[in-house]
Parts: sequence; C-alpha cells; structure tokens
Amino acid sequence: MIKPFSDEYFMQKALDEAKKAFESGEVPVGCVVVSNNTIIARAHNLTEKLSDVTAHAEMQAITAAAGFLGGKYLNDCTMYVTLEPCVMCAGALGWSQIGKVVYAASDPKRGFSVYAPGAMHPKTEIVKGVLTDKAGLLMKSFFEACR
Amino acid sequence: MIKPFSDEYFMQKALDEAKKAFESGEVPVGCVVVSNNTIIARAHNLTEKLSDVTAHAEMQAITAAAGFLGGKYLNDCTMYVTLEPCVMCAGALGWSQIGKVVYAASDPKRGFSVYAPGAMHPKTEIVKGVLTDKAGLLMKSFFEACR
Repeated sequence: MIKPFSDEYFMQKALDEAKKAFESGEVPVGCVVVSNNTIIARAHNLTEKLSDVTAHAEMQAITAAAGFLGGKYLNDCTMYVTLEPCVMCAGALGWSQIGKVVYAASDPKRGFSVYAPGAMHPKTEIVKGVLTDKAGLLMKSFFEACR
Repeated sequence: MIKPFSDEYFMQKALDEAKKAFESGEVPVGCVVVSNNTIIARAHNLTEKLSDVTAHAEMQAITAAAGFLGGKYLNDCTMYVTLEPCVMCAGALGWSQIGKVVYAASDPKRGFSVYAPGAMHPKTEIVKGVLTDKAGLLMKSFFEACR
C-alpha cells in the first residue's frame, strides 16, 4: 500500500493522468501539481489532440496551477511528472520558480538534464526515480503499440 | 525605407508587437510567424496580464501558427522575434521543427544559446542581429522605466 501524501502517492496520481494520455493515443505523460498536500492542477499530454507542440502535460499544469493560485510563481508547489521534463518544460518550470519537481522515468533523448541542465531555478529541488518502473512500462507499451 | 518581405520588414512587425507589450507594462517582446511571405501569427508577451510564465510571445505564436496551418509542425515557417528566445521558447521551437528563427537582441542572461544551445531542431536556420538596436532600445527603456 502506498502511504498517503508520499511522493509515491502523488506520482501514482500523475500516472493516472498518463494513462488517460495513453488511452487517447498520446505519448503517455501525466503530471499533478501539489500545494499543501492538495492537488491543485492535473494534466496529461495533448499534443496530438490539439495539434500543438506546446501542449505537454507540464505546460498545461503550470498554467492551471498559476490560475488556481492567482499568481504566476509556484514556489510552494511540487510537480509530480511521469517523465523527465524536456527543455521547454524545464524552462517553464524555471520561470515558475517551482519549489520541487519529482519525476519518474528519465529521458536521455529529450530530458532537460542532458540538454539544459541549468534550466530549472537554482532553488528548485529535483527528485527522480519515483515509480520509475511503472512509468517506464507505460512508455514502453505505448511505443511498442505504435510499431 | 525597409524593403518589403525582407528580414528587416518582418522584424519591424515583431517590434510593433513588442511595443504593444511595452504599453501594457509587459517586458516588451513581440514576434510574428511568417509562411510564404504572409504573417500567419503575431503575439506579444502577456505573462503579467495572464499571470502565466508560459505566456511568452513565442509560445502563443507557435500555438496560433499551428492552429492556422492545421498541423503542429512549422517546417516552412520563419519566426521573427525581438529578443533571443529563452530555454522554454527554444525548446518549443525545437519541437515545432520551425524552418528559421530570426531574432533581434541577444539575451545573455536567459537566452537559449547560453543555456540550451542544442534546443532548436538541427535543421532550423538561426539568424541574429536584425534591427538589434531598435529592439535593445525598447528593452532598455522598459527596464529604466521600472526603476
């Protein structure tokens, strides 16, 4: 059993979002934004449905969380996302000054840690490797189904 | 006189957008997206008005151009933008596979060329230094007025 309000707990919620993307034929990435142990935004990748490369889960969730809070900075928030953010999303997270980012699977082909290691705000805590196997399996299933 | 349909011509249109941002109290960055010598999208920075760090001119213009074209890739398009794109915007431009990006002023503090030099698509042509003085003057005026 996953302990409530743990990193695993919220990552499971992000995985639930990723599954919605999977079921819609989108690259299965999902995320949630948490403030004071409450999910204030959730999103999944919609790039195909919207024909918009900017419609990554993280971008939508940043906009939604800022809308919820009524301010553009997310200092007291944590984002849980099933895949390592790309350069675009890491840049956006950097601008948001988000307090913490937790991701599941690494993305050696597109991840920010390879292509823009300085993109996040210096005060942002980065945690990786939470429910990595589940997230990785979902991605693998998606790309195998695409073949 | 600026020659019609030249880089300077379209950059002037981007500067016109930047001036709209300036007049609204936004960091004055503007851009246009051009396809076949026609402006298919124009935008200016709206981060303050929307309380949304993702509302950079380039992000809005990518979404608008893709909406106009009915597809998410912008291979045959050129973006003219008054300031060197940040990491977020360069990442988005990379995903869009845009054909060419022309920018006016460099941004040594936030520009992609310092923090994410590999963010753009390898086939994207990058041109810098078009109407740089005009764009730089607008930025300088804005930040002086903020003091």
